Amino acid sequence: MTSSDIFAEIQKKNSFLCVGLDPVIEKIPRQLQREEDPVFSFNKAIIDATIDHAVAYKPNLAFYEALGPGGWETLQKTLEYLPSEVFTIADAKRGDIGNTSTLYAKAFFEQMDFDAITIAPYMGEDSVRPFLAFDGKWAIVLALTSNQGSQDFQLIDNSDGKPLFASVVEKSKTWGTAQNMMYVVGATRGSHIENVRALVPDHFLLVPGVGAQGGSLEEVARFGMNAQCGLLVNSSRGILYASSDSDFAVAAKKEAQSLQGAMEELLSRYLT
Amino acid sequence: MTSSDIFAEIQKKNSFLCVGLDPVIEKIPRQLQREEDPVFSFNKAIIDATIDHAVAYKPNLAFYEALGPGGWETLQKTLEYLPSEVFTIADAKRGDIGNTSTLYAKAFFEQMDFDAITIAPYMGEDSVRPFLAFDGKWAIVLALTSNQGSQDFQLIDNSDGKPLFASVVEKSKTWGTAQNMMYVVGATRGSHIENVRALVPDHFLLVPGVGAQGGSLEEVARFGMNAQCGLLVNSSRGILYASSDSDFAVAAKKEAQSLQGAMEELLSRYLT
Repeated sequence: MTSSDIFAEIQKKNSFLCVGLDPVIEKIPRQLQREEDPVFSFNKAIIDATIDHAVAYKPNLAFYEALGPGGWETLQKTLEYLPSEVFTIADAKRGDIGNTSTLYAKAFFEQMDFDAITIAPYMGEDSVRPFLAFDGKWAIVLALTSNQGSQDFQLIDNSDGKPLFASVVEKSKTWGTAQNMMYVVGATRGSHIENVRALVPDHFLLVPGVGAQGGSLEEVARFGMNAQCGLLVNSSRGILYASSDSDFAVAAKKEAQSLQGAMEELLSRYLT
Repeated sequence: MTSSDIFAEIQKKNSFLCVGLDPVIEKIPRQLQREEDPVFSFNKAIIDATIDHAVAYKPNLAFYEALGPGGWETLQKTLEYLPSEVFTIADAKRGDIGNTSTLYAKAFFEQMDFDAITIAPYMGEDSVRPFLAFDGKWAIVLALTSNQGSQDFQLIDNSDGKPLFASVVEKSKTWGTAQNMMYVVGATRGSHIENVRALVPDHFLLVPGVGAQGGSLEEVARFGMNAQCGLLVNSSRGILYASSDSDFAVAAKKEAQSLQGAMEELLSRYLT
């Protein structure tokens, strides 16, 4: 998928919403627990409820690996259920030496047919490059995450006074292009989005942390939007567990619709 | 498993060898390709051939994920085949925000019964701590890896003139103890092993990069050994593909035996 394809979908739906498919078996409404594959049934219902308002879907691998080997089947079925026009992200935070990263890339881009995978950059260039060798596929590199622990290393200043996350973006952007790389930037501080946007004016940013993790959607759009929108903002728990009852899909739809409404307004205000 | 258990096995076998179970389907000898699960048959033969000389086994997850859902079954069977006295490491390089890391920990410590998992530290404290909450289980944090890309970020000096990998060790060692944390330190430079050993005198270090990646076993022992040995040195390709022919198991045994012999000599020289 190209960035133009993603932007076309954003314009069609007036939304830059990414839905995080992070299903926790205990939180799945009781009426689905009797199904053959409750997690898949839940994902299907969430996808049906949100597909009009979301341009991307992001299953987090941990939630599937915790289910054992069957979890991978559930993930595969979920991926196959998603229509081809939405952007699919394996939130796997992989990264290893070259030949090993190549195998991870094959797992997510060939064995499965994800459009993108998230990458932890700690191991450097040869851990990221293998993910850039697949036509139409994307590596989404962690720059600044939205959790408390992001302060431990990502914000350490180097001897030039530059935080590690800025070094990660500056160095890694030379390994690929705005057509095969994106960055994860948490929404917890608008100034960070502004910093990263200055370093990569054309790249898409994947932004977690709006909602449950406390970031402001308006700030993200103000500091992060570019001519192709350039933003995918993720919501997981806020949508998945909008209701824990039999009306969960209706509640999820309402939540996605509300986010889409806010995004439509921000697109009309900030799209340059 | 406790560090004393690991040390007892080291003393019993006069070895601190870890065998990396990184099977590539194309490289598996022809006679096994006809088996129902060629990768499991290969792993089994490698384990049988090396079990007298190895104290730890480290399957790299990428090699199993690349096989699709069946790869997880193969991994599970391999883990179950390993005798309980050897230390088992899921080389998965995981790490995510707290609740997600908890799920990864459950996947590897509960769904499967690994003793340890490797962790990428980029996301900081809350991404590592969940792995420390399981009795007798270990988090093995990447400090300094042995690949070319380790130079991109791990060796960046911070404003105090300290490289990132040293900050990672110094900060993260306060999150756990020498009874539930180890560090990955590449063998490419003895001085790095010396630096890390000074920061964590009592922790075990997992050392890749001896052999194919060019490090020297003697330097690793000289700079890294402590009173409990404190070292697990990994070899993958050198053992797995010692021969690509029907004598692969014999060749693997010979290679493991030769490494064990060198390790026995180093234990007698450097064990303090």
